[in-house]
Amino acid sequence: MRTDYTCPPPSDPPKDTSVQTLGPAKIRSRLNRPQFVDEDARVYLYAGVKDVARLKGVNPSFELAGPREHIYFDTAKTKCAIVTCGGLCPGINDVIRAIVLEAHFNYHVSATYGIPYGLEGFIPSYNHALMDLTPAAVSRIHEFGGTILGSSRGPQPVEDIVDALERMSVAILFVIGGDGSMKAAARIVEEIAARRIKIAVIGIPKTIDNDIVYVAQTFGFDTAVEKATEAIRCAHTEALGAPNGIGMVKLMGRESGFIAAQAALALRDVDFVLVPEDPFELSGEHGFIPALQRRLRMRGHAVVVVAEGAGQHLLKRPEATDASGNVKLGDICSMLQAEIKSALDQVKLDYTLKFIDPSYIIRSVPASSNDSIYCNFLGQNAVHAAMAGKTGMIVSKWSGNYVHIPLSLVTTGRKKIDICSNYWRSVLESTGQLSYFYPEGCP
Amino acid sequence: MRTDYTCPPPSDPPKDTSVQTLGPAKIRSRLNRPQFVDEDARVYLYAGVKDVARLKGVNPSFELAGPREHIYFDTAKTKCAIVTCGGLCPGINDVIRAIVLEAHFNYHVSATYGIPYGLEGFIPSYNHALMDLTPAAVSRIHEFGGTILGSSRGPQPVEDIVDALERMSVAILFVIGGDGSMKAAARIVEEIAARRIKIAVIGIPKTIDNDIVYVAQTFGFDTAVEKATEAIRCAHTEALGAPNGIGMVKLMGRESGFIAAQAALALRDVDFVLVPEDPFELSGEHGFIPALQRRLRMRGHAVVVVAEGAGQHLLKRPEATDASGNVKLGDICSMLQAEIKSALDQVKLDYTLKFIDPSYIIRSVPASSNDSIYCNFLGQNAVHAAMAGKTGMIVSKWSGNYVHIPLSLVTTGRKKIDICSNYWRSVLESTGQLSYFYPEGCP
Amino acid sequence: MRTDYTCPPPSDPPKDTSVQTLGPAKIRSRLNRPQFVDEDARVYLYAGVKDVARLKGVNPSFELAGPREHIYFDTAKTKCAIVTCGGLCPGINDVIRAIVLEAHFNYHVSATYGIPYGLEGFIPSYNHALMDLTPAAVSRIHEFGGTILGSSRGPQPVEDIVDALERMSVAILFVIGGDGSMKAAARIVEEIAARRIKIAVIGIPKTIDNDIVYVAQTFGFDTAVEKATEAIRCAHTEALGAPNGIGMVKLMGRESGFIAAQAALALRDVDFVLVPEDPFELSGEHGFIPALQRRLRMRGHAVVVVAEGAGQHLLKRPEATDASGNVKLGDICSMLQAEIKSALDQVKLDYTLKFIDPSYIIRSVPASSNDSIYCNFLGQNAVHAAMAGKTGMIVSKWSGNYVHIPLSLVTTGRKKIDICSNYWRSVLESTGQLSYFYPEGCP
Amino acid sequence: MRTDYTCPPPSDPPKDTSVQTLGPAKIRSRLNRPQFVDEDARVYLYAGVKDVARLKGVNPSFELAGPREHIYFDTAKTKCAIVTCGGLCPGINDVIRAIVLEAHFNYHVSATYGIPYGLEGFIPSYNHALMDLTPAAVSRIHEFGGTILGSSRGPQPVEDIVDALERMSVAILFVIGGDGSMKAAARIVEEIAARRIKIAVIGIPKTIDNDIVYVAQTFGFDTAVEKATEAIRCAHTEALGAPNGIGMVKLMGRESGFIAAQAALALRDVDFVLVPEDPFELSGEHGFIPALQRRLRMRGHAVVVVAEGAGQHLLKRPEATDASGNVKLGDICSMLQAEIKSALDQVKLDYTLKFIDPSYIIRSVPASSNDSIYCNFLGQNAVHAAMAGKTGMIVSKWSGNYVHIPLSLVTTGRKKIDICSNYWRSVLESTGQLSYFYPEGCP
Repeated sequence: MRTDYTCPPPSDPPKDTSVQTLGPAKIRSRLNRPQFVDEDARVYLYAGVKDVARLKGVNPSFELAGPREHIYFDTAKTKCAIVTCGGLCPGINDVIRAIVLEAHFNYHVSATYGIPYGLEGFIPSYNHALMDLTPAAVSRIHEFGGTILGSSRGPQPVEDIVDALERMSVAILFVIGGDGSMKAAARIVEEIAARRIKIAVIGIPKTIDNDIVYVAQTFGFDTAVEKATEAIRCAHTEALGAPNGIGMVKLMGRESGFIAAQAALALRDVDFVLVPEDPFELSGEHGFIPALQRRLRMRGHAVVVVAEGAGQHLLKRPEATDASGNVKLGDICSMLQAEIKSALDQVKLDYTLKFIDPSYIIRSVPASSNDSIYCNFLGQNAVHAAMAGKTGMIVSKWSGNYVHIPLSLVTTGRKKIDICSNYWRSVLESTGQLSYFYPEGCP
Repeated sequence: MRTDYTCPPPSDPPKDTSVQTLGPAKIRSRLNRPQFVDEDARVYLYAGVKDVARLKGVNPSFELAGPREHIYFDTAKTKCAIVTCGGLCPGINDVIRAIVLEAHFNYHVSATYGIPYGLEGFIPSYNHALMDLTPAAVSRIHEFGGTILGSSRGPQPVEDIVDALERMSVAILFVIGGDGSMKAAARIVEEIAARRIKIAVIGIPKTIDNDIVYVAQTFGFDTAVEKATEAIRCAHTEALGAPNGIGMVKLMGRESGFIAAQAALALRDVDFVLVPEDPFELSGEHGFIPALQRRLRMRGHAVVVVAEGAGQHLLKRPEATDASGNVKLGDICSMLQAEIKSALDQVKLDYTLKFIDPSYIIRSVPASSNDSIYCNFLGQNAVHAAMAGKTGMIVSKWSGNYVHIPLSLVTTGRKKIDICSNYWRSVLESTGQLSYFYPEGCP
Repeated sequence: MRTDYTCPPPSDPPKDTSVQTLGPAKIRSRLNRPQFVDEDARVYLYAGVKDVARLKGVNPSFELAGPREHIYFDTAKTKCAIVTCGGLCPGINDVIRAIVLEAHFNYHVSATYGIPYGLEGFIPSYNHALMDLTPAAVSRIHEFGGTILGSSRGPQPVEDIVDALERMSVAILFVIGGDGSMKAAARIVEEIAARRIKIAVIGIPKTIDNDIVYVAQTFGFDTAVEKATEAIRCAHTEALGAPNGIGMVKLMGRESGFIAAQAALALRDVDFVLVPEDPFELSGEHGFIPALQRRLRMRGHAVVVVAEGAGQHLLKRPEATDASGNVKLGDICSMLQAEIKSALDQVKLDYTLKFIDPSYIIRSVPASSNDSIYCNFLGQNAVHAAMAGKTGMIVSKWSGNYVHIPLSLVTTGRKKIDICSNYWRSVLESTGQLSYFYPEGCP
Repeated sequence: MRTDYTCPPPSDPPKDTSVQTLGPAKIRSRLNRPQFVDEDARVYLYAGVKDVARLKGVNPSFELAGPREHIYFDTAKTKCAIVTCGGLCPGINDVIRAIVLEAHFNYHVSATYGIPYGLEGFIPSYNHALMDLTPAAVSRIHEFGGTILGSSRGPQPVEDIVDALERMSVAILFVIGGDGSMKAAARIVEEIAARRIKIAVIGIPKTIDNDIVYVAQTFGFDTAVEKATEAIRCAHTEALGAPNGIGMVKLMGRESGFIAAQAALALRDVDFVLVPEDPFELSGEHGFIPALQRRLRMRGHAVVVVAEGAGQHLLKRPEATDASGNVKLGDICSMLQAEIKSALDQVKLDYTLKFIDPSYIIRSVPASSNDSIYCNFLGQNAVHAAMAGKTGMIVSKWSGNYVHIPLSLVTTGRKKIDICSNYWRSVLESTGQLSYFYPEGCP
């Protein structure tokens, strides 16, 4: 029973939360006002007393992030590399900047390279030029959205990637990317281990959908929600502006409807929010179309927010995939519009539907102050972890602390809205949609 | 030869710029610190010396707007009505609010009614409830986008409208609407004249496309451009973020590409701006597709801004029309995307195209301060004009002055970008698109 | 050793975390899709494994917030009241709205009253009119900053307050206020207990300074930081725009410099951030003035952010207090400006200082989406707690969960920046100020 | 009788509107799609028919700005310089960028230099490093407020300035500055003429106060007003949030209250706007303090907007001046606060006054889209004028057209609000302040 909207811990505890290391580390040289984190400082997985009781006192924990007294690399000879993969997200440049500045000013590394255009940048045949990320080069990049490195989708041969790392003499690789990139990072770690070379790989999870397990909230999510509310606000205005006005907004959310749910909560002008986690029927007594009709009859307008992955069970679709291996989603909004037209025309209800798809507008903007700070800490702690010789892990925030999570845990699944939680109940209350779906009372 | 981006005067002077009146007016009761405008105060049509010379000294002029010493109506017994028609636009609520407050506090009218949902609101069968617009009811409406009255498209029988006005004892009707609404207003004036009744009809032109002749710039246009630039900024970020990234933005502009042109000027990150006024070819030496390819080869990314009405000559389309009688536009962006795909696939150029359609986001937002002030003056001057017994006219801004323009002039055509002007040349310079269309020099 | 910037748990565990109740509660009537929280669901105080080890396995816990199956009040006969005290903060209206809607739609209370102008509103002699907070009355209030109830500072006789509650037949009082208001709330609870009446008092802590213990982050803080960064951005622009330009920004933060620290982290254009927690000297080898001079000589400009409570040890001041009993702070910024002038004039260094005091601009704005959602949950959970018969407690967020904290704990101290934490180290790194304070290396 | 809020033409026509030239120009080389402006294309000073009638048909005119077919300079050998003087203003970087890009891409000049820190940058003893303004160097500067060149106040010896221009072989100097800078530019022109050298000097007037004659509206003004409204909005929120709450906002406006007036119009939440042009008394029957008391008694709160130069006649002050020679203003807001305190304490009226001084926040922000476009045209037309051999002039916008105005006209006075205009009447109506100043009716 949880009330938060952030990442709930799993009901089954992970078997292993230990982080790989490249080897023993040495006492580091003086760090500015050092506040070193002990190796045995850890953060509990479960904050809930009943969870721990249920598991008979078992409460796994994660390594606390932060600077270590013992460092693994000879920093002055160390070269870092950063690669950004997949779709854009507010704050990527902030993470890049934090890594570069931390590595330069606190660990005095000899260079940090930017790998251009995602994993493609490792492959010589693409012929992308490597970037030299000096403090000056990154000083104002956080003022802009996107990634200065460029990005691309899809995998590249892991051998070629490790070849490139060796060729560049890179000792630390930072991978900023989503689910697929974290899986790629795990394979890179395996290849590195197989070659018995000493390269650390640290992930910083990036996803606009906020769907990564063991990450309370992904960076950029707050900013994306703020932008999404602007689109919903406009849909509300349009809906109010016409007789039987319907404002429909499509938001990102392939398998997890967090953006849609969160934006609905923020604005409270939304009447229906449809997400992948909570399937619905189109017609029939408790279907969406009759519910929408009830709403229109009672209030004369309606605002519908649709996560792009909602209602996929209602669509026939070919099993196509994109370059990242994601299944191509069916177009739920077009289908809903067609069904609404058909149903309302039949009952001769004059209506106006305004469809807004803010699409990339919510993800290409610069990060808010809050997200920017978050990215800063993620980047700094990623550098601390790498310098201590950690590898095969990501930096995450858990119970308000920055922690190290093994890649093996992060790639085990996707975070989704728990539709039995108080969080989802709050969303449903804020929309009031149950009263239209179930006019005679909820089941 | 003009350099401004606002409404150029026509090359042929209008035959008549005189405004209709309902009859002689009387000395009005005391107005707060009156600064009355004389009836013979006028503003010249042409500010250009050569225009006047070409016309052998002829320089027509418009009535200057503002409060008159002589007023026509017995204000305490006067009822006003406001109707808003067509699509939304930033600032409508500001105009409504200004009319209500001016009519109430300065002329002490007995009531101002809001006609709900456009011209539909006059027709009893629609059964929309009339709104009573008190100062309290409108006090904060300018904080929100849209129109509190609601709107609708399409004509209604002019007899029914005038019947309704008579039934409600309305003496003054304010029509906030676009080209079609101004034509409807003209017909209402005719019907009123035919019935020999005394009802003033004043228009306040509203169009997101800024395409009304004799109006230097329509209200809400600045705000819409500001929002449009946000979308373009994101398209630029997306284009930079992928190898051969193309960001394409669709903007409003059915027959006039002012929003696209203006936003391109504001941002200067746009590489191609396509508007209805400047037709282009798709293929061939000087076609858009080869130009885009040149751009990608040279710079690795491209931002394309497309006014919805651009390139219609390239599309086969059925002659369908919407409720307002506007011809339904072909989908230029889908066609461009298909052509780009076909051409770039053929030359095996890997690219990523991100399409952003901000659609209603740019028109449903509240007005900027600047637009808000403009709307305030339009509303106040509309009331002044009506109270003086003017009818069949709109309020406009010309050469920095608020003026009265006869409806007969406003409905004579649409304002378009003059593609031989310095304005359009500046747009083309800011995009640099000519160098891609004509790599060997312009014709 | 912690890395977060939010509320650290105390090093000594609280003696008692149990929440008072008014008496046993009954099974409640049907709640919409109920997801009841068990009474024994609790959230651990410590998330850090070493903290728990140090305390030999002791880990106190807080009640988990959320709807209870057993409710204490006969909801249909229950009247609620809301009072807002002290200074403004983004999100107050959001909390009010959430309470009103939750109490109305989920518990069907008979009324919710708004107490006007803080505790003054309880005192008949002030003659403020009680407000009836219906769902319609609060529907759009979250679009505006401030509090629709009005506020005031300072205490009122606790007997008069409880008299008023009895007179109004109020069963539940929600107090939205700061440190002083929580103390007042505690006294009201005592008086209620002494009278053996059944009135629940629930606090929702509000402080722009984010200085309340056992509250990870107060609502509105994120929004305030976002606005604060706008002022700093301008100070940076001004500093860059003049030879030896100094931009100085004063920010709120009487005893805790969280806003200043957080804004400095967000923007990373700040060169010095001065907070109450980290005292500094003015002159001498490691004083602020020489440090500023070093900065100017090296970079030609400087941005200084000062929390209003910083450097109070450097000021002689009378021990005056304001209406809330807060000690009046000395004017650190004027003093710094005078000292800078004196020092730089002496060395004939031409400089330009631009001082920006955004003051109320950062606290009077509407809440961001993120804060708005947070306020929504706080308000809903406050109602759940009250309905279950809880009293003498606040709603807080801890380790990502909403919890109940006894008022007795919250009023034990103030949250301050731990200047030995990694958080403060990050702030200092982002400003680089240590290198100017200690040019030959930190102590 | 005018209704606009922009620059009214003077009641006495200027004696001479002709622009100086350096000498005859030659047919220029091909310009991209040339739309040349004829030398005799001019724009009338008066748009008002009655103005022209009063002057018996006399209507002076200004040269129309734009590219000329005949150009004076051998562009490939031409070097330009840009200097920015005085206080910041939104859009300076936009003007710089427009000049650099136009000079480079359309006229192919050999270099454009940035003079650092205002006129100081010409003086060797200051030792400021000259900047090379390439297109790459200015490509994104419009995203930031301020001036990348830096600025300074105050005059420098005109001989030294011209010496520097000669030393740098600069053929064209662009001066972006206020009233004082335009006077300095005029003296530079005289010195150049005296030396019989061929250097063109073109001014682009910059003032946050919008107080330059013959300039309808200065660049950055719209942006500043938009930011000013944010501060007023907060003052309104604060005023509403306390019993007898007074929100007081100080805005820029030394001798002209345009920002205060315009922001009051935009927001309509202002109850009193005090500007330099409309003197007021403090006490007495029609004084400000009694008027404020009336307002508080009637409505319980008040918002007061004060231009910094308002009410100077009420202050005793030393005749100090700043580096630019501007008289130092007395602190009207402190005086008003003291007077309010004294008066309200006397009648034992409990009140809360929140004072907001947004100061530099309104002028250091980046330009809005609208202002950005305006700056772009100003910069482009400045280059066109210079290239045609014009000198001793500014670029301005008049009646919607860009024009050339001789420096001699611009320095003749300051633009002020005409308090007998409909513009000021609208401001007073929007505040309603006359009803508090003159409760028994206006004089």
